[in-house]
Amino acid sequence: MSPQTKLLHYQELAERIADLIGHGIYPQGERIPSVRQMSQQQNLSISTVLQAYGLLERQGLIEPRPQSGYYVRAHVEERLPEPETSSPQLDPSHVSLHDLVMMLMRDSANPNLAQLGAALPHLDERLIQTINRIMAKIIRQRGVDAHQYQFPPGLDALRVQIARRMVNAGCSLSPGEILITCGGTEAIDFSLHAVCRPGDIVAIESPSYFGTLQTLEAHGLRALEIPTHPRDGISLEALEFAIEHNRIHAVVVISNFNNPLGSKMPDERKKDLVDLLSKHEIPLIENDVCGELYFGEKRPVVCKAFDTKGLVILLSSFSKDISPGLRLGWVAAGRYSSEIEWLKFTLSASSPTLPQIAVAEFLEGGGYDQHLRRIRREYAHNVELMSDAVMHYFPERTRLTRPSGGFILWVQMPANVDSLELYKMALQSGITLAPGHVFSATSQFPNFIRLNAATFNYATERAIERLGGMVKDLAKV
Amino acid sequence: MSPQTKLLHYQELAERIADLIGHGIYPQGERIPSVRQMSQQQNLSISTVLQAYGLLERQGLIEPRPQSGYYVRAHVEERLPEPETSSPQLDPSHVSLHDLVMMLMRDSANPNLAQLGAALPHLDERLIQTINRIMAKIIRQRGVDAHQYQFPPGLDALRVQIARRMVNAGCSLSPGEILITCGGTEAIDFSLHAVCRPGDIVAIESPSYFGTLQTLEAHGLRALEIPTHPRDGISLEALEFAIEHNRIHAVVVISNFNNPLGSKMPDERKKDLVDLLSKHEIPLIENDVCGELYFGEKRPVVCKAFDTKGLVILLSSFSKDISPGLRLGWVAAGRYSSEIEWLKFTLSASSPTLPQIAVAEFLEGGGYDQHLRRIRREYAHNVELMSDAVMHYFPERTRLTRPSGGFILWVQMPANVDSLELYKMALQSGITLAPGHVFSATSQFPNFIRLNAATFNYATERAIERLGGMVKDLAKV
Repeated sequence: MSPQTKLLHYQELAERIADLIGHGIYPQGERIPSVRQMSQQQNLSISTVLQAYGLLERQGLIEPRPQSGYYVRAHVEERLPEPETSSPQLDPSHVSLHDLVMMLMRDSANPNLAQLGAALPHLDERLIQTINRIMAKIIRQRGVDAHQYQFPPGLDALRVQIARRMVNAGCSLSPGEILITCGGTEAIDFSLHAVCRPGDIVAIESPSYFGTLQTLEAHGLRALEIPTHPRDGISLEALEFAIEHNRIHAVVVISNFNNPLGSKMPDERKKDLVDLLSKHEIPLIENDVCGELYFGEKRPVVCKAFDTKGLVILLSSFSKDISPGLRLGWVAAGRYSSEIEWLKFTLSASSPTLPQIAVAEFLEGGGYDQHLRRIRREYAHNVELMSDAVMHYFPERTRLTRPSGGFILWVQMPANVDSLELYKMALQSGITLAPGHVFSATSQFPNFIRLNAATFNYATERAIERLGGMVKDLAKV
Repeated sequence: MSPQTKLLHYQELAERIADLIGHGIYPQGERIPSVRQMSQQQNLSISTVLQAYGLLERQGLIEPRPQSGYYVRAHVEERLPEPETSSPQLDPSHVSLHDLVMMLMRDSANPNLAQLGAALPHLDERLIQTINRIMAKIIRQRGVDAHQYQFPPGLDALRVQIARRMVNAGCSLSPGEILITCGGTEAIDFSLHAVCRPGDIVAIESPSYFGTLQTLEAHGLRALEIPTHPRDGISLEALEFAIEHNRIHAVVVISNFNNPLGSKMPDERKKDLVDLLSKHEIPLIENDVCGELYFGEKRPVVCKAFDTKGLVILLSSFSKDISPGLRLGWVAAGRYSSEIEWLKFTLSASSPTLPQIAVAEFLEGGGYDQHLRRIRREYAHNVELMSDAVMHYFPERTRLTRPSGGFILWVQMPANVDSLELYKMALQSGITLAPGHVFSATSQFPNFIRLNAATFNYATERAIERLGGMVKDLAKV
């Protein structure tokens, strides 16, 4: 047996067991078959089973008990409360987060820090091998193709694949409506550029992904922060009030697995949001970069699914669910499509070619779905572990979101804890995190932090332990 | 002998002969050694020599004469006159070229058209093989590295290589001052974004690269077109006058191998330009994307070499001299560095990772210089052939630039020939070109066209012949 085959075997076994745990076949707190039993049942070597159990243990799904065997890890039932609905002032405000955000960016490239700050995904080894194999094949077989300009709207084959996938999100997009970008960040830039002029007011969630806030700052736009419920999303009542009292040029939301809230807006509210904005002819920019990373049974729909007037600009990327280094995103911009296509050509010419060919092949071949199944389970599990750790190590009066997808957690600490102070203390201790300050134009969240749970391991738990100690200290003062 | 070795042999022989021709060892019009003689002299097979001669013939360096052998091709001495210095109105103007430029972009992706329009480089087969080999190695050896974010300012190793190369252009840049972008287009966007606000006036050359004009349009900036000499570049006298009569926020030039003029601004004038702008504290955005594609002996200096106040924003890319599909450019922005780094992070997050690692290795390994020597010779030769063809097939009263680098030609046709009409006629005949209209915000060049000579072959010559016929017809009306 080649090492490659063996590698796949133990990972597959681990996945099968994880599935059984997920479906309650092996219930929480119960013992699973011993290594010897499993080896006989599955006709696999002892060492393969040991490797699988080791993996499941690292993933936190099972735990060994001395002289007794492996048990399904019990989930802690008691919960920290969620943060409450935010209550920002309904006044538009210019954004100025420049320096703080650049500091965070620099941290994220520092290999000596525990990376709890930036929303870096886990680069799954098996996925990377697959993508690299595809790229190597393209280079070998279609050498020059990888080097041509791939002018807007981008590679046909990739746009076809994206259109097909979006059917699961309730959307019937034509490939012609989809434009490939250099990552989702560029898609946000062009979307706001297309529908706003400097000084315009953009309604956003509170808290809001700091990338959105930064883009508003770069374009001289004013942010109008709308109260947002940690699970239901942006308050439609407050938004309607804001629309009646301001000239709002665009609304930006992350409706699925919000950054930083981790929540999925209920489908009915998505429809209501689209209806409200349609009535007022206001474009909705919907960022769906984590849409495929759901923990539930089904791919959630997008607001764009309810769009009848071409007012919803839906954007996404492959940075969170495949690879950020490839720089591939996309936007389906309804009535703004030709404007955004022109901006793309004018301001960035084209997107990298080899990644487009490779990801198109990956999606065609079905490897993407397989990968997503694996990574969803992993993220769900790691978010669970991270939540447990926060619960365990952070002081009372801590509140915590309940993400239903993605890999980030939003933590509300006691009111007297300043996240910027915590950020500085944590850095001294080799930990970086995203302080709440960068998720609001008006400093709504001084005592919040965002944590990245994409890879949760022993070191992460130790970092959370140290962090919890610091928060306790700060809370006491 | 493996096929790979043999391939290199004939190409190397061809290069050696091309060198001898270049140095006049085989003078123009003279016979070169017969295939049999060369085979004996070099101890190579007849078929290798035949392949080398075939290549030299395709490159237009030698020509076969029946029953006589191969001769060094004679260069046509008589010349068409150059276009005159442009004379635009010195009034700032908003730009509106949207639709026409998008039409050109779509043409450039049409494989059924003779591509004389877009400035697509020749994707040299040997280069592509080398770059692909490097990429395949990186994928194999450093699989995950290629997939990480590579946040601004971008890959250290690549920035070090760029800094080293720029010494040849008279510049001592620190790697820390260099920021990697997704191609040169993005670098232009961020540069203008950093120094201008909507409505501001930007002084540009006349004619000007349409990408610059488009970027002005996208940012709501006003273009002030300055008279420009086809070889000496932007008129410093006119620019000074313009500065005295307008509040100019930035100046954009392509000082080396201008697009579309092909000319290199004399070094002294570069210095004078920098001095003039320093005096008025006006930033200069210098686009040097073709700086390495010189036909002369030496890498020309850049304006940035004379910058003492950090006012020159120098940008370039690897799209014209390596591969456009990789999407790699860079900018050294002096006092605007941190602003542009922030814009890069905010509006595009990062540049594609694998290309950065690959190009850094390519530059480190010395392959780039070897490639540049080859491609410079090829472009010089193709520009020559294209000039000959225009001279031969276009009507009298045609004027033509004398590029000293790059691969494009700027052609002035008789005054009554409208390039847009010609563009439409040419399309019917399977040819696309860039009409003069897109090189000015105020339609200064209705009877000009820009031609791409990067790949000149038999089909190109036939296209120029058909084009010449159309121009003659239009000139008669």
